[in-house]
This record gives sequence, C-alpha cells and structure tokens, in this order.
Amino acid sequence: MATKRYYPSVQLIGENQLKPFSDRLAEKIREKKTPTLVGLDPRWAQIPDSLKANKSENNPQDVADVFESFCRKIIDIVAPLVPAVKPQSAFFEQYGPLGMLALANVIQYASQKGLLVVLDAKRNDIGSTASAYANGLIGPNATSPWGADALTVSPYLGNDSLTPFVDVANSRGGGLFILVKTSNKGGGQFQDLVIDGVPLYQKVGEYVAQLANESRTQSGILCEYGNIGAVIGATWPEQLAKMRSLFPGVWFLVPGYGSQGGGARDVAGAFDSHGLGAIINNSRGIIFAHRAEVYKERFGEAKWEDAVNAATRDMIDELATETTAGAL
Amino acid sequence: MATKRYYPSVQLIGENQLKPFSDRLAEKIREKKTPTLVGLDPRWAQIPDSLKANKSENNPQDVADVFESFCRKIIDIVAPLVPAVKPQSAFFEQYGPLGMLALANVIQYASQKGLLVVLDAKRNDIGSTASAYANGLIGPNATSPWGADALTVSPYLGNDSLTPFVDVANSRGGGLFILVKTSNKGGGQFQDLVIDGVPLYQKVGEYVAQLANESRTQSGILCEYGNIGAVIGATWPEQLAKMRSLFPGVWFLVPGYGSQGGGARDVAGAFDSHGLGAIINNSRGIIFAHRAEVYKERFGEAKWEDAVNAATRDMIDELATETTAGAL
Repeated sequence: MATKRYYPSVQLIGENQLKPFSDRLAEKIREKKTPTLVGLDPRWAQIPDSLKANKSENNPQDVADVFESFCRKIIDIVAPLVPAVKPQSAFFEQYGPLGMLALANVIQYASQKGLLVVLDAKRNDIGSTASAYANGLIGPNATSPWGADALTVSPYLGNDSLTPFVDVANSRGGGLFILVKTSNKGGGQFQDLVIDGVPLYQKVGEYVAQLANESRTQSGILCEYGNIGAVIGATWPEQLAKMRSLFPGVWFLVPGYGSQGGGARDVAGAFDSHGLGAIINNSRGIIFAHRAEVYKERFGEAKWEDAVNAATRDMIDELATETTAGAL
Repeated sequence: MATKRYYPSVQLIGENQLKPFSDRLAEKIREKKTPTLVGLDPRWAQIPDSLKANKSENNPQDVADVFESFCRKIIDIVAPLVPAVKPQSAFFEQYGPLGMLALANVIQYASQKGLLVVLDAKRNDIGSTASAYANGLIGPNATSPWGADALTVSPYLGNDSLTPFVDVANSRGGGLFILVKTSNKGGGQFQDLVIDGVPLYQKVGEYVAQLANESRTQSGILCEYGNIGAVIGATWPEQLAKMRSLFPGVWFLVPGYGSQGGGARDVAGAFDSHGLGAIINNSRGIIFAHRAEVYKERFGEAKWEDAVNAATRDMIDELATETTAGAL
C-alpha cells in the first residue's frame, strides 16, 4: 500500500513558497488554541489487536502497513485538535527500509491534513554530510523527499555541523530543534557538566539563541521567535523556566510530558505570557491512551480511538488551565 | 532492482552466532594486513557519467539505482584489499525511502563479500527509542533488517541513551563507535570545553573506555580491545596519541584522512605497537580517486575503477610505511 502513495507528489528540487517556520508554528498554535504536540511512536506490542489481524511482526511489510494505518488513524483524530505531530524515526527505522517508507507516507499524510510535522530523528554530521541530511529531511511543501517541517538535531559536533541544517531550514520555511537539556536522567552526565560556572546545556542554549536570532533577521519572521529552537525536557521544570528567561526568542520543544513524568505545571515555565514559546509533546500518553489506567476502564481497546481523542482533549485542557496557553 | 534482493534473507529475530565484534575486527585487520576503512559516500555529481547514462538526479529510483551500482562496484574492488567499509547514511537518506533501500542493499552486499560494515549514522535517543535504533541498525548475520556490524553513535544524551546500543551490540556480535573528538574544526565548540581541567571529549572518552572494558568481560573478547570504540578525527594528531595512551582498550575509528587533510603520519599515534587499535577511514579520496590531482591524469574517468584500486593500495602502503600497521 505504501509505495504507490509516496513518490508521485514529490519534487526533489522545489521553490519555497512558505512563510518562515516560526510564523507558521505560531499561527497553527493560535488557530488550534493549544501548544500540544502529538508524538507518533508506533510500537508493535501496544498497537490495538484489531489493526494487527492477519499481520506478523516478523514480516517488515506487515509492520510497515500496520504502523502506517495506525498513524493515519491517530492523525485523523488529532488533526482538528492540535497544531503538529512528531513522528519518531527510530520506531520506523527499526523495521528497515519498508519502515522508512511508512514514515515518509505518515509525514505526507499529516501534512495533507494540515498538521505541521516535526521529525524526531536527532541527526547530525559534518559539512556536506550535514547538508545531505538537511536537504533530504527538512522540506515542507514537497521541497524534500521526506518533507518534514522541522527536524530535531544533536549539537555535539558543533557550529559547522549545525549551520548546514540552519541554512536549509531558513531557506525552505523549515525549522530545527537542537538538543539542549534532554528529558532522560542520564542526560545530565555530559549536559550538566559545568564550564566556568555554566552548565554545558546552557552553553549549547546560548548558541541556539544566537542561531534563532539570526534566523529572525534573515527570514523576515513576524512573531517573536526564530526558526531554530531547543529541546528541553518537561522533567526539568526549573531549568525550563530559567532557559525561558535567558533565551526569549527560542522555541522550546518539550518532551517528557505524560509517560515520562512531566505534568502541566512542570512545563508552565516554558511559555511566555501569551502562551507562545513552547510546544509540549506527548507520545505514549496519547497514542496508547487505551492502555493507561485513567482511560482503560472508560474505553478499553475496543474504543481505542475514543481514548486517543479523550487523552488529547484532556492534555489540551490541562495546559490551558495550568499554563499561559489558556490565553491563546 | 533493489526491492527484490533485500528482504528474503532477513530474519528480524535471530540468534547471534558470531564472535564478539572486537575479535572479528582484529581478525579482519590481520587477515588483510591493513587497518584501512573505505567510506561509501555516494554523491551524484561526482559519480562517473558512465554509471548515470539515461538516469536523472530528479528521479529517486534512478539515484538509488546509481548509488547502489556504484557502491557495489567499489565493494568489488576493495573487498580483497581492506577489512571494512563505512557507508554514510546521510547520502542515501537524502533521496528518501528509496535511497534507504539502496543503503540496506549495499550493507548486505558488503557483508556477502566478507567485509565488516560500520554504518555511519550518528544515531542516538533515549530509553526504548534508543533500543529501537539499536535493534534495527546493529545486527550482523541477519539479526537486524539493516544488518550493520557496527554503528556510529552520538553521546550528548548521556549514559542511559548509550547503554541500549551497548547491550544490543554486545549481544549480537556488533560494535559501536561513539563520537569523542570529531574531525571538523567546529567540533571544538563544545568538545573542547574544559571541565575541571579536562576537555569534554576526554570526559566522553573516559566513559567510552569504561563501556569498552565492560564489554570485554561480558563478551569473552580475546583481543585487547572492547566492542565499544571511539570516533577521533585524523585532523587532531596530538589528541589521537594522547587518547591512545589514556584509553588502551578502545578501538578508534579515525575519519578525516585524505580529503579532510589528515595523513598517515597524523594517524600514527592512533595505533598500538602491533598495528592494532584503530581503523582509518578514507571516503572521497578513494571512491572518487579519479577526480584527484594525483590520479586524474593517470586514469581519468574512463578508468575510474583502476583509480579506486590504486588509491586504496596507496593508502594501505602509506599506513604500512608511516605507522605500526606495517607490523600487521
């Protein structure tokens, strides 16, 4: 089912006819009145059995088909409610090239449904290799074969590894989210190391802020934020608030909400007074809501789509109640 | 051409019947008497015209076919000469899912030809997402759909992001190369930051050494090195030598030889006295040798395969003359 849908509509070389990513993100958030980001992390074992009838995990084509149809159903449910989705490349890549084809189809379908797509792939490399990733992955409006609106990127290789991604993002109406302070406990092993009184993640944040600021002048962005954002986990509420005050022009992509333990109050510090400045990701807590204590009895696996709907609406309400996102 | 070759021979769940990666790498290096690693970085513009007849860069299937046939020809030439190849994921990913299918086919073909395959993808993520990457990408002997013997990984997310990769590598006869000190100039922006008198890259190196050491006891490795190695660029000869003395049990994957400016003398410090401990990568300098000053007149594009052969043999000779690899 996958191969036929994908390629016909893709042009490898195209012109950007889109506004800057930052303005598009701000618009979508205001349109949907929520900064909720739904993570698409398909896991075979947790997908409802009804979608896996006559399919085998040992057949990559079966898995790719199930992942794609599951994600399309999620997209159908959340597209009227949220501004964006975040497919996680790893879960598709795990099943080889056919998994990757499903990923491309999922990205395209989400775009068709009016959602912004943040591809979570944490890529990076140097020089022309970084350009190859950027050219391939970042390119809304069919300017790249994968067609993501924004991409997550790792900073360890330094400035000359990041600028090729920045250039492609700015020129195509795309965005970047650079890892700064990740949600996992072990993230502190290197990110919290202190250099001249400043933790490494803040040093990285300073560079992200510089790139964000440059992108504003280069791209003619209207909102207060640049195209280059930072990943900061919901599991670090104090650091989130501190980074917000230090780097006012930087969009934050905040993972770790829900299953990883972050709640609406924990992410309150990520927003500015208008409810902008951050998008808050929830993956498992939404797409596998039918397995969560709070929704299991009410819906169960038979009504898993209703559970996804309820979990999305509950998260939207929680953010509106506990953060300035209520002002959107 | 690609789809038919790939899947039939792959089992998603398989048993490891291989020796530990470290021993397999040492054996291959001794068998070929060289630590030369050939990087597979296909770039459309630089591939000989004879391979691109009636093909268009704007057609992803054409590009995938050309990349695959080009890499297969390179593999045919270098398989008798070197222990391993290093495909760069970015150049395949740039052309979408069909590019990725070509990558999978290239990995499988190299394995069939007896080469070890180090997939250069610089992946990382947290928890079960890291496991998904590791399960998908690392898995010689058809234990994974991509089937690489080893994978490059980025360390920024810390220990709990690295251990899922380590566990998969150790259990399947696979290996890892974790970024420590990269070959690009901008790599110093964060890697050279000093914490308590020690640069960040050395802190990362210390953790890599710990993982390498643990892998030796866990995997019953016979040679002196663990399954978990470090990436350290040829462009930093002093740091290479220092890291060699600090971390005696760690394999080094050394990029930056050739086109990036590193020479045989620059990498001499990466080896132990037996010529083991490092593999030295050359990508463009070998696969596009027909375009280099030194081979252009002698071979030209018509004899590009002879240029690849000559460049590989020259690199082998240079390493044997200028480093302890001559003792292999």
